[in-house]
Amino acid sequence: QEGAGHSSRSLVFSDLTELEYEKVRDYMWKQADLKISKDPFAAPAENFIFLIDRLLPKKKDVLQYLDESGKEPQRQATVVVFYGSQGVIREYVVGPLPNPTFHKDVTREKYKTNLHINSRPVTIGEYVLLFKFIRKNVFLKLPKLLQESFGVSVDKQELNPFEGMPRGVRSGDRQTWISYFRDYSGMYIHPVGFEVLINHASTNHSQWSVEKVYYNGEYCDSVEDLNQKYEAGTIDKIVYKYTPNYASLKPRTKHLQVGPQQYYPQGQRFSVKNNQVLYLDWSFAFGLSSLTGMRVFDVRFKGKRIIYELSVQEAMSVYGSVTPGMMLTKFLDSSIGIGRFAHELVRGVDCPYTAEYVDTYRYIDTSAPQRFRNSICIFEHDTGRPLRRHFSDFFQYSYGGMGNSVLVFRTITAIGNYDYMWDFIFYQSGSVEAKVHATGYISSSFKVKESTQYGHQVAENTLGNIHTHFINFKVDLDVLGEKNVFQTKDMEFEEVDLPWSPGIKRKIPRLVEQQLVTEQQAALRYDMKMPRYLHIASNQTNRWGHQRSYRLQVFSFTGDHLPESETTEKSMSWARYKVAITRHKDEEQTSSSLYNQNNMWSPAVDFSTFIEDNEDIKNQDLVAWITTGFLHIPHAEDIPNTVTVGNGGGVILRPHNYFDEDPSIDSPDSVYIGPK
Amino acid sequence: QEGAGHSSRSLVFSDLTELEYEKVRDYMWKQADLKISKDPFAAPAENFIFLIDRLLPKKKDVLQYLDESGKEPQRQATVVVFYGSQGVIREYVVGPLPNPTFHKDVTREKYKTNLHINSRPVTIGEYVLLFKFIRKNVFLKLPKLLQESFGVSVDKQELNPFEGMPRGVRSGDRQTWISYFRDYSGMYIHPVGFEVLINHASTNHSQWSVEKVYYNGEYCDSVEDLNQKYEAGTIDKIVYKYTPNYASLKPRTKHLQVGPQQYYPQGQRFSVKNNQVLYLDWSFAFGLSSLTGMRVFDVRFKGKRIIYELSVQEAMSVYGSVTPGMMLTKFLDSSIGIGRFAHELVRGVDCPYTAEYVDTYRYIDTSAPQRFRNSICIFEHDTGRPLRRHFSDFFQYSYGGMGNSVLVFRTITAIGNYDYMWDFIFYQSGSVEAKVHATGYISSSFKVKESTQYGHQVAENTLGNIHTHFINFKVDLDVLGEKNVFQTKDMEFEEVDLPWSPGIKRKIPRLVEQQLVTEQQAALRYDMKMPRYLHIASNQTNRWGHQRSYRLQVFSFTGDHLPESETTEKSMSWARYKVAITRHKDEEQTSSSLYNQNNMWSPAVDFSTFIEDNEDIKNQDLVAWITTGFLHIPHAEDIPNTVTVGNGGGVILRPHNYFDEDPSIDSPDSVYIGPK
Ligand SMILES: [Ca+2]
Ligand SMILES: [Ca+2]
Ligand SMILES: [Ca+2]
Ligand SMILES: [Ca+2]
Ligand SMILES: [Cu+2]
Ligand SMILES: [Cu+2]
Repeated sequence: QEGAGHSSRSLVFSDLTELEYEKVRDYMWKQADLKISKDPFAAPAENFIFLIDRLLPKKKDVLQYLDESGKEPQRQATVVVFYGSQGVIREYVVGPLPNPTFHKDVTREKYKTNLHINSRPVTIGEYVLLFKFIRKNVFLKLPKLLQESFGVSVDKQELNPFEGMPRGVRSGDRQTWISYFRDYSGMYIHPVGFEVLINHASTNHSQWSVEKVYYNGEYCDSVEDLNQKYEAGTIDKIVYKYTPNYASLKPRTKHLQVGPQQYYPQGQRFSVKNNQVLYLDWSFAFGLSSLTGMRVFDVRFKGKRIIYELSVQEAMSVYGSVTPGMMLTKFLDSSIGIGRFAHELVRGVDCPYTAEYVDTYRYIDTSAPQRFRNSICIFEHDTGRPLRRHFSDFFQYSYGGMGNSVLVFRTITAIGNYDYMWDFIFYQSGSVEAKVHATGYISSSFKVKESTQYGHQVAENTLGNIHTHFINFKVDLDVLGEKNVFQTKDMEFEEVDLPWSPGIKRKIPRLVEQQLVTEQQAALRYDMKMPRYLHIASNQTNRWGHQRSYRLQVFSFTGDHLPESETTEKSMSWARYKVAITRHKDEEQTSSSLYNQNNMWSPAVDFSTFIEDNEDIKNQDLVAWITTGFLHIPHAEDIPNTVTVGNGGGVILRPHNYFDEDPSIDSPDSVYIGPK
Repeated sequence: QEGAGHSSRSLVFSDLTELEYEKVRDYMWKQADLKISKDPFAAPAENFIFLIDRLLPKKKDVLQYLDESGKEPQRQATVVVFYGSQGVIREYVVGPLPNPTFHKDVTREKYKTNLHINSRPVTIGEYVLLFKFIRKNVFLKLPKLLQESFGVSVDKQELNPFEGMPRGVRSGDRQTWISYFRDYSGMYIHPVGFEVLINHASTNHSQWSVEKVYYNGEYCDSVEDLNQKYEAGTIDKIVYKYTPNYASLKPRTKHLQVGPQQYYPQGQRFSVKNNQVLYLDWSFAFGLSSLTGMRVFDVRFKGKRIIYELSVQEAMSVYGSVTPGMMLTKFLDSSIGIGRFAHELVRGVDCPYTAEYVDTYRYIDTSAPQRFRNSICIFEHDTGRPLRRHFSDFFQYSYGGMGNSVLVFRTITAIGNYDYMWDFIFYQSGSVEAKVHATGYISSSFKVKESTQYGHQVAENTLGNIHTHFINFKVDLDVLGEKNVFQTKDMEFEEVDLPWSPGIKRKIPRLVEQQLVTEQQAALRYDMKMPRYLHIASNQTNRWGHQRSYRLQVFSFTGDHLPESETTEKSMSWARYKVAITRHKDEEQTSSSLYNQNNMWSPAVDFSTFIEDNEDIKNQDLVAWITTGFLHIPHAEDIPNTVTVGNGGGVILRPHNYFDEDPSIDSPDSVYIGPK
């Protein structure tokens, strides 16, 4: 039965294949005038293909292809080239695939500005030079201090770097605070109290410099300055003391009994072919962007499209600290690449043994496509509770119910210290849930005076720094076609006279419905009193005359993300809103960009501009941008790893008068017990 | 291994046994002066034992018994007697069990007032008379109308009643609007448009009267009035039309493949003995109150008590409608009995096949204890996601993780139309979650003009009425003993000068901690900006010098419950607060009472009085009262049953600096994969 009912049309959304990456790369390399280096460790001064990724076709073309037998949209790639030689970044459209014949620079069309070279992420090539630079200009100059303070010999690299971001305080800056951590597994919670500020703004790495050195709470203007103070004894010395690796994840006890496991007693009820999943009444296409991460398209229930696109957009964290490496730190993971870090999933821990595992291929910061084995898992899961049930023992005697088995589509992305678990969950009642949980290591800093204003001590000399986790999802629901409206519903109390008791007044709850008609009305700030029900609705009505809709139910524990007055805030302006509704535009594909992290002050994508034009959203193709997440005040139980319990957020997309009745009533999983 | 490690001391919290119920009942029946009827259908004018339930010993005595080898507290029962003959209700303490020798009227001591007989719930005995009364005084007088409008013959009872509450508008009232529904399974969504207001305030049922009749949107002063208008054709007639039973839960399709199932490949990892559960590092005692529902006591992790009591307190719903039966309706389920309706759980739907099932015994509105087979289930469940994990592929190469297997303790209570699923969940990371989901049938009313101001039409002539679900949990954490404080933590932005860049200012997140020292400070209203972290803390510190605490993380979608100006609000004043912290008192055992529903205007327990005295909560035994729930705007997909997806709420109790590191690191379920 595997393969039955599948359609190759889902490939219109598919990631590039290994061969396609190679063909695009080779095509670009062949353009002699672009002078692109083939070296995977290309230096900043060289020209380097940083990224090849699928360029999705325009929605209109896809819909014509899927719904109206239109022709298949041309398959194209986005190619990002860092021109170190010219100090700019260019983005190209390259096509058609698999045998490209053209490349077109779309940078200005896409971003309305040039991209300064320093808005690029740091490549492996740059890191190699950076670490070499630091070894020579910092470490080799401090053998005694390193030995006495950290037990580290300069002959071996025994401290590992962790970078703060943004890299400076204004556009064009590329000055990075690098904090050092013990070379243990789980280094992130072994800070040693040593940080350096490196200016690597020039693409000519011979011009790089050490700007500041920070040691045990004090700032020095240079390595020499530190050395001198250290020798003179005018700086508080850190005295090395062996610490066992409390960050280790090695089990401390033997396995005893294995816990409960799931199996499919009558076989698997879903199938995966190409990039398409079929599960009971559901079908969808899937992909994984190296930057934004996992996404599904053309999600249909009982054959009818409900969601055009559901995708991860961004994962942001804002930190507080008294130490420089983390004081300003604001991570925008999609600039580093969320999907990039979707590694192999471990059977029996990350996903059940019985899951199906899918490989993905990526081309990012490399010179050859890379295969990531088993980096997506798909499984059916019994949630252990009923989807619905009712028991009756008066007037009528009966029991009816149904278990809640769901399909889970998952990746886990380990972006440095943190691991985000991403789930899209498909319910038999027609709901889809997008869910994220955080786990992995917290970031930490070496404890100094005043540290505990910024978090809690969680280990020897180690402060777990206060920070946020804000996640942005894109939800392009198409409720019975693209033309939709945005509605809210809530309850209000209204005083009425009791009809049967004249003169007696009571306050009665009433349903209050509203339609929000412009993008700015529909940009719901996290701190406003929000209507409890939010709907993307069609003007078509169900059998009972109500507008057919899907409701957005957001689960979030966020608060304020960053004062809007901060110069970096525009790079994360999506976080102002719990929910924002915009008109769909192919040009507004993502709420963040590859360049937002390293040019936070003048970000290539500023989500707030999507709603600045305050377009009419009546009967338009609407996209909902959902923010969820939580505040993380690290505590001792974050050592060694943060647990997923309570550390997450998400959104449920639920039918609300979309059907004429609960569609799960038709499920063959329904159970009924009547009286004898 | 079953039974190893168990202690019979958990019986100090156990429910009464079948034999104990009988002994208490027989003792009470033997007291000739009390003149108690033995008839399970005793009339309102008679004296009737409505309830026998366990009276929990004073906490002090229990702790002495458990912790200091004190003597076992005397086992006692609470007995509620409705004295129809005297117009009062009395509550007795009866003991010692199992062979009682005394009974003591504690009514005034407990409630500071007498209990008017009309604050009692309606007994089966009263219902029998009520239905007989209505049949004679309403149905038998309307044969033609019933036949023509509803297709109902008066020879057979073919309409079923559903009551509105409260029963009137002031203390002492007992006037009930009864709405009629078709005699189908799932009658609750088959309203016919016929409602009657019966005054049954007198315990002498010969004085009962029909006050109003409501038919198809119009009020009549009497049955005769309605008949006359119907005959004269001056009232809009409902013309009967056959409707198939859209409320049926019978499967419409054949079973195909069974979905995923869990099993214990190496056997069960928990054990149940008497009323005690052992699961890995956890142990707890459990019980089920007929009124408030399920509860656990003396919850220990690694041998240390964390929770003295975690219990369901109340489930409240406020409805809106234009029809009289539901216009004022506010249900307070603990007055009807939440635990009372914990029926048999269905294997494979309500709980996994592999769960352990426990019987419970109750004595409520009966004359003999009743056994409820398999009414509690306990199982270990693989949540299908990791509890924690980290993957690293730079500097250090390794993977560490652990699945998230949890113990679930569950009951499901079908209180009329609604089924609440109650879960207490025990995590290997030291967290406990209390969770509730709603399913079953919505309440509905016959659709008339203006109905849709109060909900959506969900079926033929049927309005699903807007309503709330508010749930109250009692959480008596004892963090390293009883003396605790209440703390909040949150993040605030503070402007600082960058130490390495003089003159540049940035706003940095800072940790802000506060201790709330009085009950009124610690009564956190649902609509206030609430600190994101709430903690019950000890003054003892962990290894890193931080106060050891458990955090309360509330998941809720509620809003305002009822304006405080309403005369019925005091009966549900706990719903004003998302979280309220009080000093523990044995006299403040529950936030509601058996009498709150039928005397909402002057409730026997008004939670707000617990905090009115604004006691000091520094270093006291603290109890947290948690409110969760959601607004329910019924929609077509609520037919036939509301699904559990998104319809719930709860609270996670999580260690926060309670330990020195995550206790799951010691779990034998830990997995580690290193490089070769
Ligand atoms: Ca716009
Ligand atoms: Ca759309
Ligand atoms: Ca008090
Ligand atoms: Ca306590
Ligand atoms: Cu975190
Ligand atoms: Cu409801």
